[in-house]
Amino acid sequence: MSLSEFELIQRSFRACGARRSDLVLGVGDDAALLRVPPGMDLAATLDTLVSGVHFFPDADPEALGHKALAVNLSDLAAMGAEPAWVTLGLTLPAADETWVAAFACGFCSLAREAGVSLVGGDTTRGPLALSVEAKGLVPAGQALRRCGARPGDAVFVTGTLGDAGLALRLLGEGVPVEAGLRRRLERPDARLAAGTALRGLASAAIDVSDGLAADLGHILEQSGAGAEIELACLPCSAAVAAWLERTGDWALPLTAGDDYELCFTLPQERLADLHRLLPALPCPVTRIGTVTPGTALTIRAADGSAFRPSRPGWEHFHS
Amino acid sequence: MSLSEFELIQRSFRACGARRSDLVLGVGDDAALLRVPPGMDLAATLDTLVSGVHFFPDADPEALGHKALAVNLSDLAAMGAEPAWVTLGLTLPAADETWVAAFACGFCSLAREAGVSLVGGDTTRGPLALSVEAKGLVPAGQALRRCGARPGDAVFVTGTLGDAGLALRLLGEGVPVEAGLRRRLERPDARLAAGTALRGLASAAIDVSDGLAADLGHILEQSGAGAEIELACLPCSAAVAAWLERTGDWALPLTAGDDYELCFTLPQERLADLHRLLPALPCPVTRIGTVTPGTALTIRAADGSAFRPSRPGWEHFHS
Repeated sequence: MSLSEFELIQRSFRACGARRSDLVLGVGDDAALLRVPPGMDLAATLDTLVSGVHFFPDADPEALGHKALAVNLSDLAAMGAEPAWVTLGLTLPAADETWVAAFACGFCSLAREAGVSLVGGDTTRGPLALSVEAKGLVPAGQALRRCGARPGDAVFVTGTLGDAGLALRLLGEGVPVEAGLRRRLERPDARLAAGTALRGLASAAIDVSDGLAADLGHILEQSGAGAEIELACLPCSAAVAAWLERTGDWALPLTAGDDYELCFTLPQERLADLHRLLPALPCPVTRIGTVTPGTALTIRAADGSAFRPSRPGWEHFHS
Repeated sequence: MSLSEFELIQRSFRACGARRSDLVLGVGDDAALLRVPPGMDLAATLDTLVSGVHFFPDADPEALGHKALAVNLSDLAAMGAEPAWVTLGLTLPAADETWVAAFACGFCSLAREAGVSLVGGDTTRGPLALSVEAKGLVPAGQALRRCGARPGDAVFVTGTLGDAGLALRLLGEGVPVEAGLRRRLERPDARLAAGTALRGLASAAIDVSDGLAADLGHILEQSGAGAEIELACLPCSAAVAAWLERTGDWALPLTAGDDYELCFTLPQERLADLHRLLPALPCPVTRIGTVTPGTALTIRAADGSAFRPSRPGWEHFHS
């Protein structure tokens, strides 16, 4: 890229996100310098989004900027970490000023809102792709991990499931999608407040990026446990409920990715503590089942029969 | 990608790099958890390498694995930081088992050697590209920055300049390239020992990734200073010296990127301290000029005339 193209891009991201006193040195040197407060661990997570794989090549750049950061903040939420800093690797076929400005607007707005500062990165020419590494802070020893679920623990999810999957499906079929539903696909919210509130309470947590069945499966695998969940308990928006009513497609809320809700487990003796927390949370929290001995994930339909979704979840691996 | 493809890739990177007691939680959860020791700052740098832009599509995957990490370690070296952790975003058109195993071998060997642990990342399908974020540790307040050069300071570089550029040029012309020269292009060494040794000594530092003139230019710009350097003082390998003798192409050591040497400035009163350090360094260090008032970078040919390279450096921006 020419120097002027880089200057254009650099200008779009100038002073991006929150000002933080724990940022010693930001964009513009060989590396950023960050100061982790004593007693805190650093949570770090990197995700890559590739055009044509994770988003449509003609996706709204402002929404894409939001989503590229939101999916990483969601990983921090699932660890119970507060977001602090982010780096961005931006690969662009050309330096389209309008596109870059809109992308930066979406990215930097969410960064400011989440209290996170863009501290560095790299811009290169190539097929459109975004790599974002978000870094958060969590009191040492208090991070939410995947491995702590025990038989008898209750299984919960935040918010509603299947909205992003339904929006994606309808868009693919060329059907007009109501704004609220579309927003769930294109501008997801990371459940940051729920994540930090669950520290010291949840026995395990994960964010639902690959679909509930796959992600709860990761908790069970790492915890050496099974679970039984009830289809009838899955929290669904009006749009998804109407879809289920019409199609009976229960695989949607179970296996569609991109929800970015949190799935967590909670020891029975902490249920009262969770209920005390609920009024302060900006999203509903719904019990969907119970952790069991063994290793199987059993899904019960309303008539008590075992349900097996016909589609697998979205498969990828990430830290 | 299918689950088995991801498992293949994950297996190739299992226990990659050094074991570190400051790694609380590595690959396999929503985020890695890292513990920064008290009194240390975290240096973080992200670089993306794109096939066809930063490397040949048929590049040796083992060398590519090495280089993808080395270029990031070089940024840490330029900050005076010791490498600690790394995340890897790997975008692959297909899960080619042989390619992935060779790439992982090159990446993980260097990680082990440099004492750095692979703590997380993401693997996605798409056009071949690599994003690496390296994280290092530096005592708070002791990082080497670009902004501290003052008129009168001496300008130094480590190692030799132009080797990678010459190898790239010869390969492009289909000329056989001697192994040592080719290694400088394909398997660069980060000057980590020099970087940490220069803490508290150098007034500014940068790694030479875009070419000496461009990178020294960054130091001068951020320091609000100029410099005068002597062509005759530029440290060159026998291969580059022979090339210069034959072609007079002085733009090569001045502007070819990919050298990954360190360029640094040193107050005159610290020259004796630097000389005491030299025997312990694994690479030569050569004085090439002096920081001056003003903002111009003047390059003197052997006859005292000002030299202007005909080619600009490799232009990109990164933190």
